[in-house]
Amino acid sequence: MQEINVALIGYNFMGKAHSYGIENVSFFFDHGVKPVKKVIVGRTEHLVKEAAEKFGWEEYATDWREVIHREDIHAIDIATPTSSHVEIALEAAKAGKHIFCEKPLAMNASEAQQMYEAAEKAGVVHMLGHNYRRVPAIVLAKKLIEDGRLGKIHHFRGIYLQDWLLDPNFPASWKLDKKIAGSGPHGDLNAHIIDLARLLVGEIDQVIGMEKTFVGKRPRVKVDEKLSSNLTASGASDDYDPVTVDDTTSFLAKFSNGAVGTFEATRFAGGRKNHERVEINGSKGSISFDFERMNELEFWSKEDDVEVQGFRRILVTESTHPYISAWWPPGHVIGYENTFVNEFADFFKAIKDKEQVYPNFYDGVMNNKVLDAVTKSIETLTWEKV
Amino acid sequence: MQEINVALIGYNFMGKAHSYGIENVSFFFDHGVKPVKKVIVGRTEHLVKEAAEKFGWEEYATDWREVIHREDIHAIDIATPTSSHVEIALEAAKAGKHIFCEKPLAMNASEAQQMYEAAEKAGVVHMLGHNYRRVPAIVLAKKLIEDGRLGKIHHFRGIYLQDWLLDPNFPASWKLDKKIAGSGPHGDLNAHIIDLARLLVGEIDQVIGMEKTFVGKRPRVKVDEKLSSNLTASGASDDYDPVTVDDTTSFLAKFSNGAVGTFEATRFAGGRKNHERVEINGSKGSISFDFERMNELEFWSKEDDVEVQGFRRILVTESTHPYISAWWPPGHVIGYENTFVNEFADFFKAIKDKEQVYPNFYDGVMNNKVLDAVTKSIETLTWEKV
Amino acid sequence: MQEINVALIGYNFMGKAHSYGIENVSFFFDHGVKPVKKVIVGRTEHLVKEAAEKFGWEEYATDWREVIHREDIHAIDIATPTSSHVEIALEAAKAGKHIFCEKPLAMNASEAQQMYEAAEKAGVVHMLGHNYRRVPAIVLAKKLIEDGRLGKIHHFRGIYLQDWLLDPNFPASWKLDKKIAGSGPHGDLNAHIIDLARLLVGEIDQVIGMEKTFVGKRPRVKVDEKLSSNLTASGASDDYDPVTVDDTTSFLAKFSNGAVGTFEATRFAGGRKNHERVEINGSKGSISFDFERMNELEFWSKEDDVEVQGFRRILVTESTHPYISAWWPPGHVIGYENTFVNEFADFFKAIKDKEQVYPNFYDGVMNNKVLDAVTKSIETLTWEKV
Amino acid sequence: MQEINVALIGYNFMGKAHSYGIENVSFFFDHGVKPVKKVIVGRTEHLVKEAAEKFGWEEYATDWREVIHREDIHAIDIATPTSSHVEIALEAAKAGKHIFCEKPLAMNASEAQQMYEAAEKAGVVHMLGHNYRRVPAIVLAKKLIEDGRLGKIHHFRGIYLQDWLLDPNFPASWKLDKKIAGSGPHGDLNAHIIDLARLLVGEIDQVIGMEKTFVGKRPRVKVDEKLSSNLTASGASDDYDPVTVDDTTSFLAKFSNGAVGTFEATRFAGGRKNHERVEINGSKGSISFDFERMNELEFWSKEDDVEVQGFRRILVTESTHPYISAWWPPGHVIGYENTFVNEFADFFKAIKDKEQVYPNFYDGVMNNKVLDAVTKSIETLTWEKV
Repeated sequence: MQEINVALIGYNFMGKAHSYGIENVSFFFDHGVKPVKKVIVGRTEHLVKEAAEKFGWEEYATDWREVIHREDIHAIDIATPTSSHVEIALEAAKAGKHIFCEKPLAMNASEAQQMYEAAEKAGVVHMLGHNYRRVPAIVLAKKLIEDGRLGKIHHFRGIYLQDWLLDPNFPASWKLDKKIAGSGPHGDLNAHIIDLARLLVGEIDQVIGMEKTFVGKRPRVKVDEKLSSNLTASGASDDYDPVTVDDTTSFLAKFSNGAVGTFEATRFAGGRKNHERVEINGSKGSISFDFERMNELEFWSKEDDVEVQGFRRILVTESTHPYISAWWPPGHVIGYENTFVNEFADFFKAIKDKEQVYPNFYDGVMNNKVLDAVTKSIETLTWEKV
Repeated sequence: MQEINVALIGYNFMGKAHSYGIENVSFFFDHGVKPVKKVIVGRTEHLVKEAAEKFGWEEYATDWREVIHREDIHAIDIATPTSSHVEIALEAAKAGKHIFCEKPLAMNASEAQQMYEAAEKAGVVHMLGHNYRRVPAIVLAKKLIEDGRLGKIHHFRGIYLQDWLLDPNFPASWKLDKKIAGSGPHGDLNAHIIDLARLLVGEIDQVIGMEKTFVGKRPRVKVDEKLSSNLTASGASDDYDPVTVDDTTSFLAKFSNGAVGTFEATRFAGGRKNHERVEINGSKGSISFDFERMNELEFWSKEDDVEVQGFRRILVTESTHPYISAWWPPGHVIGYENTFVNEFADFFKAIKDKEQVYPNFYDGVMNNKVLDAVTKSIETLTWEKV
Repeated sequence: MQEINVALIGYNFMGKAHSYGIENVSFFFDHGVKPVKKVIVGRTEHLVKEAAEKFGWEEYATDWREVIHREDIHAIDIATPTSSHVEIALEAAKAGKHIFCEKPLAMNASEAQQMYEAAEKAGVVHMLGHNYRRVPAIVLAKKLIEDGRLGKIHHFRGIYLQDWLLDPNFPASWKLDKKIAGSGPHGDLNAHIIDLARLLVGEIDQVIGMEKTFVGKRPRVKVDEKLSSNLTASGASDDYDPVTVDDTTSFLAKFSNGAVGTFEATRFAGGRKNHERVEINGSKGSISFDFERMNELEFWSKEDDVEVQGFRRILVTESTHPYISAWWPPGHVIGYENTFVNEFADFFKAIKDKEQVYPNFYDGVMNNKVLDAVTKSIETLTWEKV
Repeated sequence: MQEINVALIGYNFMGKAHSYGIENVSFFFDHGVKPVKKVIVGRTEHLVKEAAEKFGWEEYATDWREVIHREDIHAIDIATPTSSHVEIALEAAKAGKHIFCEKPLAMNASEAQQMYEAAEKAGVVHMLGHNYRRVPAIVLAKKLIEDGRLGKIHHFRGIYLQDWLLDPNFPASWKLDKKIAGSGPHGDLNAHIIDLARLLVGEIDQVIGMEKTFVGKRPRVKVDEKLSSNLTASGASDDYDPVTVDDTTSFLAKFSNGAVGTFEATRFAGGRKNHERVEINGSKGSISFDFERMNELEFWSKEDDVEVQGFRRILVTESTHPYISAWWPPGHVIGYENTFVNEFADFFKAIKDKEQVYPNFYDGVMNNKVLDAVTKSIETLTWEKV
């Protein structure tokens, strides 16, 4: 059993999710590899110390650079705000460490390209945290498409709707600060549906977008809480910060293979909590997926007898479905947490087997290119090549 | 084009639905027969006169016996409260008129048997108004079962839930008076799901039931409104009438072919308006239907590839689906009213073609036998043979 | 009871739907007005004769101009392909007849404007056939918005998906010929969701669109069938006609009131039959509607207690819901056909009461302006003002 | 941080689920208690050894009696087939160990009563593994009922449908052997919905049931595999064993408080994988729950304005919802595994706080009494008191 010592940088929402994923890999999967939660890193000592205890890390530290260069560390897991990804990843590559990085990979395609090249040059395994690729229903969708069950793809329709900014008094977290987050739901949510589009349909060639910020300023957060993910309206102060990112961004897309697509991300869709919905229509079939019902894939096939054609609600919990044999019996549905176990299982297996894994930093580059092109199109008011 | 002159007895909710059905037969179907809305009959002259104008009947009358014996009348349509069915039907049979009768056929199986024998002896077409048999999705379900797509049937699960009695001040209409209605939701709603069970599974052999009346007395209605279907809580008076029927009746059933079934009807299921839901599980497939989404049939097939097995939501609106070629293009869903047009189209076609039609008075007899056996089992506290 | 004599021009799908709507107005509504199905008009005599018999019109004719000028005709109902709307409507206005016209009103905004001005000048009632405005759930949505239950609108999301062109051998009907139809799903389907957006959100200020024709040529249809709506793949010939309209058109929109919207129409979404889906998110609530479940409106309210917030599935069949008191009891769901009865009830009531009705030709002008701006944006590759 | 050393007896499906639950308690909850996975016990050494490694137990053993009496063990977790529960639990009580026991508690109420009395006498914490009580949606349902939002309860409707026996060649596992399992889906699945009925409605007074075994014999399993949960049809041999339990059991119930209920459990409902569906209707509201969509609770309230009444789909993932603050942000849905973490968190907290926890062995006694009464009613063919 090969042990792999991990250093996790970041300890908020994603830090928790990654810790959980790493913790449970060996419980569910038999890949002959055992990740060890060695050290968790964060800037604020008392908080990172607390996280280390809570999430079961052997040590904690406040200087990520030092940790990266420790000899006993094999893999670096980056779960910090977007703006810091490039610096950390370049250092990790320089130190020859395998890298797992949360999405979006970088603030822009140029940064992403540097990260990709550095990781490739270092010969390390690099992986990008688009965890929704590890939802069994999405892997099944990919298989159906590869098996030709959808035929030639005509349409991609992706929306990712949340509502946590609907209250105008919700405070100005780091996610609303362009310097730290890069963008609003565009990089946060569109990045996810762009990833699914690239996975399931192919590369995007041209885009044109539209964005809107509905609430221009929000109550200021105390400095040491700004990076927290656990803000609530009640934590707001009397001062205001400007919101420097989009509240919603949508765009039209033309794929290289002739398909067309629509994308929309927002944090203002009341009642939609994590409503990542994707529909794909091809010449022979269609699929539809909604993360809020992540155990289900809807599939329509033109090859069924006409009288019984209809979207089937496939409960993707059979032992023959992707990843499920590691989990529970049919109908014993899984949750969000499961996607992190699945992705870290694949990450550590790739390290052990010295193989490439997907999505990786190349996917990050291509994803950032689409994000950038949309942003540019919003300025130029016309279609932009990706 | 053969003209068939109809006399309709009853002018409330069912009178309206029947009038509509008869009116629209020729518009949608080409059966070479044209029903004529000759005369509508009711006890209260000013009300039946109003109905005649509203629903487009050539004449109105108050004496049903006289009308039945008119030479120009070819078919009698009985849409009155249950207690009057037998007398009217026997008279109609004696006069040699074709008979359409609302369900339940009679107050009990003995009455029903008389009606059946009289109609058979008279050699007339007789039909029972279980309109849900004419929902395209139900006809499709029947076809799938006949084609063997469900294999051997193991389970029938039928519930028919409404909530119009939830308010204890809703007044005591005729439907709550045992002498007129025979029973509560048992005869009103269970009769429908028993009909679907007999259609889709087969005859029921043994039953045991349970009933409950949650609200024992309700505000009295003014005499001339008691038979109306349009009562509301605001129409209640200060006096009270006892409720002499069940508010809910459920039962377990063993079918002759080895299947087992559960049935439940109630008027106390808050939020369920006309929730007639049927599920059937067989050795090779399952179907599920909910009238509130009457254009859909859910179908699961064991013969699908395992990875894509799932309940399909069949939108039963294709031109090749039952009855649909008469109606609208795919996805242009139909409504409750449609079932009446479909059933009267079949009734008049049967008259023209001198053929039998289903469900008929025999089905009424068998249905009443099940209803009676359940009622008896509630008294004897043990299983009763149907 | 005021009688209104109607002449209907067109006898295919919309001719049937309009005939049905006109026929059943008096049965369901008490507006003191009785439409008379006087004459139906079409070019091909044997077909229009057949339609007259089937749909119950007193007479048929082949010269619409002559019919328009008959003194006994009070209202002209235009249910022909789009290219002929302007000529017929102008003639009807000249003759002082009330006009009901199918959507889209015209081939472009300029034609639409002429029609609007002519009708206004003639002082006649003019109505546009956006029947989905008469779905009770949509009227309820409008009421909730007017009552402030959604607060300030942020998002409109409209898709209208069908799949009848998925088979590349489906023949080239008039709907695929730009000269006759004007456009493909853009004018046919986007027109509907633009109408709902204008009704529920407000006027659209700027748009940018994208279109695609997936199948460039299709089997030629025999000349006298080209205008039929009842084509099937099996009716195709060996020659081909080019498809001169879009197979799909989508666009982004900025509303005058600050809301943003996405729109998409296609005939290539396998498994979607008449999937007109609209979602609106405001600062206080959201609504969602899908025509394939037309009896339901989903509504989410920020004003509910947090612990029980959720989208409610309102079954819009209560007697207090719009139009329902004319129809059936709760839960007895209605169908597509119902929308036509409701809209013609309002049309004839407006004639009787000498009042304006909505949507009318002004709405047609505004709708065509949006359609035109999208089409222009596809050429100019940039945002266009409506 | 109080450490609690646990011994788990059983290592199959429930052994895995319990191991997972115990493992993750400290990660998600801050109850000041830390369970230690000390020793896992099973009869077949090579299999229990494998399980110990896989699920992270410090030691393994084959003699449960010996382990129970180890001084370093504080709590015994019983996850073996039903027939062995009583012996193990009595021994654990004798040894003064806290006890967690999988459901159903015992083969019958008499055994259950012994276990309850022994645990009470020993003064230990005892808990019963009805994990569905820890689904956040169920806890919310309980709260709504306690808050009076449903008013007086009229109806309980519970079904628990699976389909893993539909294939007649699926082999005869221990679950089909009455001597080991006690019963089929009756004790396995009805026990769960009886528990929810008792939690949400109250005690059951009288029952009458029906059972059926559709497939009377099945391929024999190799002896050492009989207790496994991972059987598949392909593992079957040429010999046959009789099936000595029910394939389905349904029953009618009268609650002490006047409500009525229907219950059904089966392993023959094709397409239903773990379809535990519960609906409750009261005088002021209704709730509906389906485990396959375990993150959702449907709630209908008579107190909403009539025009917007409807079942709300509450996504039970808000931080204010039960248990959720320990997990993920809104819309980041949880899975089956979550229920075990929640229940073990409560179990260990009860040990630390020396408090009672629910459901416990008393609930097990009452549950077994209902199961027994149903079984008796099947023999006597009449209603039985619980």
